[in-house]
Amino acid sequence: MENSENHQEIKVFPVEGVAGGGTAYGWSDGSVRDPSKFRGFIDPMKVPSSELVHVWCLPSTANVGPQDMPRSLEPISLLAARNERESIQIALRPKFSWSGSDIAGSVQIQCTDLCSASGDRLIAGQTLTLRRVVSILGVPDALVPLDMPTCQVNLFPGETSAIWLSVDVPNAQPPGQYDGELIITATRTDAESACLGKAQKHQLYRQLTNCLEVMEPIDGKPLDEVVERMKSATSYLRMVLVSPSFSDCFQDNGPVDMMDEDAISNLSVRLKMSLRVWDFVLPETPSLPAVIGVSDTVIEDRFGVEHGSSDWYEALDQHFKWLLQYRISPYFCRWGESMRVLTYTCPWPADHPKSEEYFSDPRLAAYAVPCTPVVSSGETTEDHLHKEVEILSKKNHWRKAYFYLWDEPLNVEHYDAIRTMASEIHAYAPDARILTSYYCGPNDAVLASNNFEAFLKVPEFLRPHTQIYCTSEWVIGNREDLAKDIIAEIQPENGEEWWTYVCMGPADPHPNWHLGMRGTQHRAVMWRVWKEGATGFLYWGANCYEKATAPSAEIRFRRGLPPGDGVLFYPGQVFSSSRQPVASLRLERLLSGLQDVEYLRLYASRFGRNEALALLEKTGVYSGAERYTLEHTPVDVMRGEVYRTCQS
Amino acid sequence: MENSENHQEIKVFPVEGVAGGGTAYGWSDGSVRDPSKFRGFIDPMKVPSSELVHVWCLPSTANVGPQDMPRSLEPISLLAARNERESIQIALRPKFSWSGSDIAGSVQIQCTDLCSASGDRLIAGQTLTLRRVVSILGVPDALVPLDMPTCQVNLFPGETSAIWLSVDVPNAQPPGQYDGELIITATRTDAESACLGKAQKHQLYRQLTNCLEVMEPIDGKPLDEVVERMKSATSYLRMVLVSPSFSDCFQDNGPVDMMDEDAISNLSVRLKMSLRVWDFVLPETPSLPAVIGVSDTVIEDRFGVEHGSSDWYEALDQHFKWLLQYRISPYFCRWGESMRVLTYTCPWPADHPKSEEYFSDPRLAAYAVPCTPVVSSGETTEDHLHKEVEILSKKNHWRKAYFYLWDEPLNVEHYDAIRTMASEIHAYAPDARILTSYYCGPNDAVLASNNFEAFLKVPEFLRPHTQIYCTSEWVIGNREDLAKDIIAEIQPENGEEWWTYVCMGPADPHPNWHLGMRGTQHRAVMWRVWKEGATGFLYWGANCYEKATAPSAEIRFRRGLPPGDGVLFYPGQVFSSSRQPVASLRLERLLSGLQDVEYLRLYASRFGRNEALALLEKTGVYSGAERYTLEHTPVDVMRGEVYRTCQS
Repeated sequence: MENSENHQEIKVFPVEGVAGGGTAYGWSDGSVRDPSKFRGFIDPMKVPSSELVHVWCLPSTANVGPQDMPRSLEPISLLAARNERESIQIALRPKFSWSGSDIAGSVQIQCTDLCSASGDRLIAGQTLTLRRVVSILGVPDALVPLDMPTCQVNLFPGETSAIWLSVDVPNAQPPGQYDGELIITATRTDAESACLGKAQKHQLYRQLTNCLEVMEPIDGKPLDEVVERMKSATSYLRMVLVSPSFSDCFQDNGPVDMMDEDAISNLSVRLKMSLRVWDFVLPETPSLPAVIGVSDTVIEDRFGVEHGSSDWYEALDQHFKWLLQYRISPYFCRWGESMRVLTYTCPWPADHPKSEEYFSDPRLAAYAVPCTPVVSSGETTEDHLHKEVEILSKKNHWRKAYFYLWDEPLNVEHYDAIRTMASEIHAYAPDARILTSYYCGPNDAVLASNNFEAFLKVPEFLRPHTQIYCTSEWVIGNREDLAKDIIAEIQPENGEEWWTYVCMGPADPHPNWHLGMRGTQHRAVMWRVWKEGATGFLYWGANCYEKATAPSAEIRFRRGLPPGDGVLFYPGQVFSSSRQPVASLRLERLLSGLQDVEYLRLYASRFGRNEALALLEKTGVYSGAERYTLEHTPVDVMRGEVYRTCQS
Repeated sequence: MENSENHQEIKVFPVEGVAGGGTAYGWSDGSVRDPSKFRGFIDPMKVPSSELVHVWCLPSTANVGPQDMPRSLEPISLLAARNERESIQIALRPKFSWSGSDIAGSVQIQCTDLCSASGDRLIAGQTLTLRRVVSILGVPDALVPLDMPTCQVNLFPGETSAIWLSVDVPNAQPPGQYDGELIITATRTDAESACLGKAQKHQLYRQLTNCLEVMEPIDGKPLDEVVERMKSATSYLRMVLVSPSFSDCFQDNGPVDMMDEDAISNLSVRLKMSLRVWDFVLPETPSLPAVIGVSDTVIEDRFGVEHGSSDWYEALDQHFKWLLQYRISPYFCRWGESMRVLTYTCPWPADHPKSEEYFSDPRLAAYAVPCTPVVSSGETTEDHLHKEVEILSKKNHWRKAYFYLWDEPLNVEHYDAIRTMASEIHAYAPDARILTSYYCGPNDAVLASNNFEAFLKVPEFLRPHTQIYCTSEWVIGNREDLAKDIIAEIQPENGEEWWTYVCMGPADPHPNWHLGMRGTQHRAVMWRVWKEGATGFLYWGANCYEKATAPSAEIRFRRGLPPGDGVLFYPGQVFSSSRQPVASLRLERLLSGLQDVEYLRLYASRFGRNEALALLEKTGVYSGAERYTLEHTPVDVMRGEVYRTCQS
């Protein structure tokens, strides 16, 4: 309602009859059949959970916040190829408060295996996982692992919580229909139902101490006194064991689990899950290399590991292995003077067995070779480089190697430095690939009559000192046709490639991985890369939080960067006692985007790239940086169409 | 960063050197002196709490959300008159996660008494209270009581929590300086430090059962076997008692409490609180009656009490008593046809002792008399009215009585209905005050040449059938001068009064009590009333949630109303097991505004109303509906000036 500046024309309140508050009352009465059950203390073990909690499903591209309103519950129906991860979200919102504490209540979530008619399984806790969606700066982003197959989640009054369910279909999983269910049961909290409170515990301790005092010492005591004491202690102990504290332990053979089962069968919300696994196997080595920077400096500071120590190697190793599951090719990095950058995928030197393990991993699509020793070994930079190249260039995996020397050169001095370093590398290995990221030409040389033309002329200016010309998507903006101009300058026949990157830019509404962007906008980063025709992708940082010196220190984003920029996962210690990194929603959507690329490539392999481009557009998934779907349905339509047309 | 449409002019990234992510790192290193303490498991009992938690204070007009950033901690310094409530907020934000569970950690908050040098006290838990600020629709609003004098609060990773501290200075409190402190200690959660988890408890149960099996049966067993068994059971039980589960029970004489004390003295954040109580006593009966509607229908539905039952009387009684602490005069209401409304402050009839108790309560500034029986007693409306008026009009409190018959009449038919009802009342009690709320003249009669003039002519149109002309602030908008036009139509010499009200309108930026408005905007509602010169205020609803049939049902606002409109408190059962209503921040700010009015009236009584108006303006507190302070400082300056100039 607007306040009218002109009081000659007083407007009538827009919702008639509502101003006084009478008529708007009672528009949705809820579904409570017997209100008396909810009057006093609500016992969740006696009420159908569906009367206590709203449960509904949302696609992985939804950003589910605390104010999200309930929708109707539909069964989960997923499609996935082999070697693919597919995810969906389950939203929960309490209709009542039943805990009596500062939460509304707890729900137990139990996830069954997914089984096929022929007895094949996707096992809960292994290929089926649940994570809790946690907000970062008020935006749902962190995915904190939940216990499997059963976990308990606290719900807060008036707030929607979201659970992230992922299925990782193994390579060798037989195609077919798999069914299972999620069983959601409102429950008392652990503290209420099963734990022994502080006071109860102290009482128990006193009782057992008393019992012990009755029992000893017996040395030298008359035997009849021993017997009497024994009887006394026995009856005392029996009394302790039948106290209410242990009421849930009385029954034999794991009564607690039995009780859980009872509760589940009668009162739970049962959410059917079905998954169609189809016969396509996503290539183990991603078709599109996505190289992602991981700051070793951040790891050193936050986890307190000294550069080059065994703890340091272990920490980097843990990060490398964890990140590989996301179809990305990690490289560690640290910044030097100007924007000189030391990048390396393997912290160990080329003659170390770990080097072979890392670089020959089929999931790794590209690896960065350090141009100087990562850990000082006394050898010169030149000796080091010579040795690394000598060993690596003979390997089959050498085709994955690249050298990333400088981040965004801005002037002739920077470009010259790249030339010098590249020359040294090419002296030893003429076929080495040098990667240079840039968004403009040198600002102190006239390559062309304007900035964009100068940017276009960078390959000509740098050749032959760079093979991978990696440009910012920000330059292209919404002018997709400019990609053709860039490609025209690249010489693939001479081993040159065009890659792209995003970082601070491009900004909304263009695809990027900033916090607060839409889910489809995150996923669209990879749609864009594929549509524009780049053959690789670079992202500067997956763990570039502000400096902190403890694993569990609060996560802060760096000053001057858009929130989420340079951060794709979080240290697990911030959210639980686990040391396992915690993925962001954005990292999951990066993975989904990379998987979509494999679908599109499969389709292109059958029907040609033009047909695949047409599919991407006609389903409404992605037409351009400002024309992509905001809703999820087109994504499923596109994937379904690939499945329908490409299944064997 | 803007994407340039014109690619002839590529802009340089605005934060130089940041794009690559290197240089923005480490700008604020925190204050951790010995990072090694934070590497592994953080034991809050061994680290100063100031290294684990940010603590800072904010005024009561601040809306403290989860993303609020820490400020420096200043001691609390408050000023309050006697019979006044003054509040402040304490914000907490974890620097680390130390709980290992899905919270970052817990803090224990202990509140000491406030003591004067002469030994007078304001007692924690009685006149000093703590409440947790809980968000409603993402906006901090609900104030959920915390245990006193010590409570435990859970903090979440990356989220700021707020605690609301209130001091209620009793009427008879000796003026002077009172000092105390809040002691904030990072702690293990109850579950970690003291409780026995489900698994541990079951293990313990099994161990004790095993022990019992060793001990019995002994009847008929050889005595040496009995002794052996006794020894075996004894050592088994001793082993159980020294297990880690009982580690906090080992010490004698309540070791847990001792440990708490230790922790407090060495590691806590100690926040000094000082309160200046001055000799002004806020009048027990508010100078400005603020009558606030409480829907009996909502109470009946939500708490499942049948109209007229003893539970119903009890529920209404509880609401009445609880609301009186806010210097407001509640009336219960239910809507009839059109906008006919039944309003009554006391559910009992005038001949019931409760009637006298309610109406003679000095904290009640005005009361609504029902024009028809609230609970059917078989008597006619006319008999009822006659009897009520007969009894009440002889009482001293009759000057507080009013009849509120119709909410916002819109046409001649409505106005005629008011005339008829008012005539009946005036037949019995010529001095009865009829209150009519309105924001326009009748839409089917021509009172004047335009709508605003027609609105102005309502007193002339209704006279003598209304005494309290209660108009919407929405009509005035930001044209404060229009208030003078309204007042000019009122005849105070004939007992007429001008009151105002807010509801859906006015909208932001004008003062109102919607969720999401600024704190000073909430408080400004009463500044405005006083400045415009109204002598009373009406608000339509304090509990007008959407319909629900259980006390702990989720709170939903009514469709078509701005969030928070018609809701000033919440059912306690939504947030805890307490039945006590939970105040909103907006209700606290309503109280603060009413208290400010008493300060201004005191000042006016010494220096005249014009000087008081000048004080309100020159301190920057309030000049008009679009010109009031957004920050808190001017409020303290104004109150301090009243204290300085008016203390005896």
